[in-house]
Amino acid sequence: MSFFKIEHQDKNSRARCGKLFTNHGEINTPVFMPVATQATVKAISSEELSEQGVEMVISNAYHLYLRPGRDVLEKAGGIHDFMGWKGGITTDSGGFQVFSLTDLRKISDEGVEFRSHLDGTSHFFTPENVVDFQLMLASDIMMPLDECVHYPVDKRYVEDSVDLTLRWAKRAKEHLAGRGKGAALFGIVQGGTYHDARKRCVDSLFELNMDGYALGGMAVGERPELINEITEYTASILPKDKARYLMGVGSPPEMLEAISNGIDMFDCVMPTRNGRNGQAFTSTGEIQLRNAPYKDDFRPIDPECGCPACRNYTRAYIRHLFKAGEILALRLISLHNICFYVKLIELSRQAIREDRFLEFKKGFLGKFCSS
Amino acid sequence: MSFFKIEHQDKNSRARCGKLFTNHGEINTPVFMPVATQATVKAISSEELSEQGVEMVISNAYHLYLRPGRDVLEKAGGIHDFMGWKGGITTDSGGFQVFSLTDLRKISDEGVEFRSHLDGTSHFFTPENVVDFQLMLASDIMMPLDECVHYPVDKRYVEDSVDLTLRWAKRAKEHLAGRGKGAALFGIVQGGTYHDARKRCVDSLFELNMDGYALGGMAVGERPELINEITEYTASILPKDKARYLMGVGSPPEMLEAISNGIDMFDCVMPTRNGRNGQAFTSTGEIQLRNAPYKDDFRPIDPECGCPACRNYTRAYIRHLFKAGEILALRLISLHNICFYVKLIELSRQAIREDRFLEFKKGFLGKFCSS
Repeated sequence: MSFFKIEHQDKNSRARCGKLFTNHGEINTPVFMPVATQATVKAISSEELSEQGVEMVISNAYHLYLRPGRDVLEKAGGIHDFMGWKGGITTDSGGFQVFSLTDLRKISDEGVEFRSHLDGTSHFFTPENVVDFQLMLASDIMMPLDECVHYPVDKRYVEDSVDLTLRWAKRAKEHLAGRGKGAALFGIVQGGTYHDARKRCVDSLFELNMDGYALGGMAVGERPELINEITEYTASILPKDKARYLMGVGSPPEMLEAISNGIDMFDCVMPTRNGRNGQAFTSTGEIQLRNAPYKDDFRPIDPECGCPACRNYTRAYIRHLFKAGEILALRLISLHNICFYVKLIELSRQAIREDRFLEFKKGFLGKFCSS
Repeated sequence: MSFFKIEHQDKNSRARCGKLFTNHGEINTPVFMPVATQATVKAISSEELSEQGVEMVISNAYHLYLRPGRDVLEKAGGIHDFMGWKGGITTDSGGFQVFSLTDLRKISDEGVEFRSHLDGTSHFFTPENVVDFQLMLASDIMMPLDECVHYPVDKRYVEDSVDLTLRWAKRAKEHLAGRGKGAALFGIVQGGTYHDARKRCVDSLFELNMDGYALGGMAVGERPELINEITEYTASILPKDKARYLMGVGSPPEMLEAISNGIDMFDCVMPTRNGRNGQAFTSTGEIQLRNAPYKDDFRPIDPECGCPACRNYTRAYIRHLFKAGEILALRLISLHNICFYVKLIELSRQAIREDRFLEFKKGFLGKFCSS
């Protein structure tokens, strides 16, 4: 059976809805994956995630490898049992993190040597051992080791980097053969902001017959219009029958734009990171709950939302909690923001099924961007 | 109708179980009140509290008066609506907090002038305005302004302090007359570690016919045996038909000891404060989950506990969360510890009803203190 199935193609855009068939159940796409870098979505429990309709989260092999480490995770029986989460889990290889350690890593064709950001100890990642680690985690969707270049960067470097990413993808795929029944391995499309490099990467990954495709090296410093342009181009040349995952993007408008371009999967730290900073998403735009006007605003965060934070608490209360340094503030906004994203994706799926995604998108953006 | 009713008196000890009849429902006693100083039990939501069987929390007039302040709380319609909590709320007057501001306050017969610990602004608490503030909060059980002396302190100071506390209690009671239907005002028994001072305080409060009695000035530096001795003595001279509240105490063994001496109400920061520090209560004693042995301990915090933290998470996972600085660690241990306290009190009530409280206490302590 195929790992991904399109259930409906919107008649007026490239948006589609479908299903991922993972070892931990079927996941509806488009899907938003809250970020659980260290085996927890910051401030939120696994029960809350499933109660709010989250179907899949994304964790990070690099972080988990360093802490709690292989030994603990292996004894736990993998990451699902470890974090008490029954839904799907995608794991990023950690390529992005390792390559962010500019002064602490050394790349060779064999792999990448790096020093832990926690204790300075030395480690070596190869395409093979990164697959092994993710297999041990029992990840549902694995990412191969790749080189993620930042923006701006010159063409020559990007071309070499694409070559390396492709060689590593091939080795990862070969290493996986016969192992990890049901676990998917995606190919990561790199190529910076250069169409021809992206095209070359897509074509070569296609030959490897990866289980899905991730758009990597996005949101690494380029302006939003460029993210959108590269997403649109890359999605247009990817095979239709495989899932497409836009890594690390984005804001609600960016997600809707990407969905209209045929993207199926998202992850982004915004709901939780912005939430811990007091910023809440509402149907009429973002609001900063620490601000003075909310002092005696006894409406819920978003009057149109029915999440637990909006059912029982007011903006004034949450502002008070923030001012008083109380943890519950971070919990409530993070939870609301995740619900906001999940709801947005659910409504998107529904709109796609009814061939009115562009209309839905226009209506949402008209309201969200009005304030 | 009386505010308190004893439903059963244990045949073999002074322990009793009963009910408080508050404006926000009936509260079973003995009762443990988690501490919600700033209108939130730290890291825990109101929904979690009620799901785990918490019937009443205690908040603090001093803290709420300074932040968010009278204006916001009045517009919110009181503290229950403000914090989204439907159960009972006791509010401490803030006497303890004000008198802790040793260098920032000036006591007179009229009241106490103090500077805010937040911004240095000057404020004046009187027995009357402290009652007014708690009435505005719609507190279910109010505490009058009192002077809480620390240990050790000389007899002469204690006697003067008891006089002041009694004059203030009388003014508070007179001020309340005809106001705040259904809200209870307790008398606070001071007197330090001196039996005769405690006795004099009890006798005078009795004449004021307070709705219940709180044992104040406990756990302020004296050793545990002395806390127990003063509690036993004071409880023995208090009227039987009124609720007795031991303020700020204590550990599970201290609570059971106090229950056997006829105490009905407790509050203590230990479940949440210790929890945020990694310390968990279990049926076989306290454990420090940050310690190395829990690294690969895949049992729940307490294998005998059925709370949400124990149902879905392991010691190893929670230790990882602690090491990784994740908020969920604080949530899970705080929640478990509150459940532990609530369960201990529930089992105590049940044992009292069946005239086997001393047996229950012995069994619990034998196990809890064994490690």
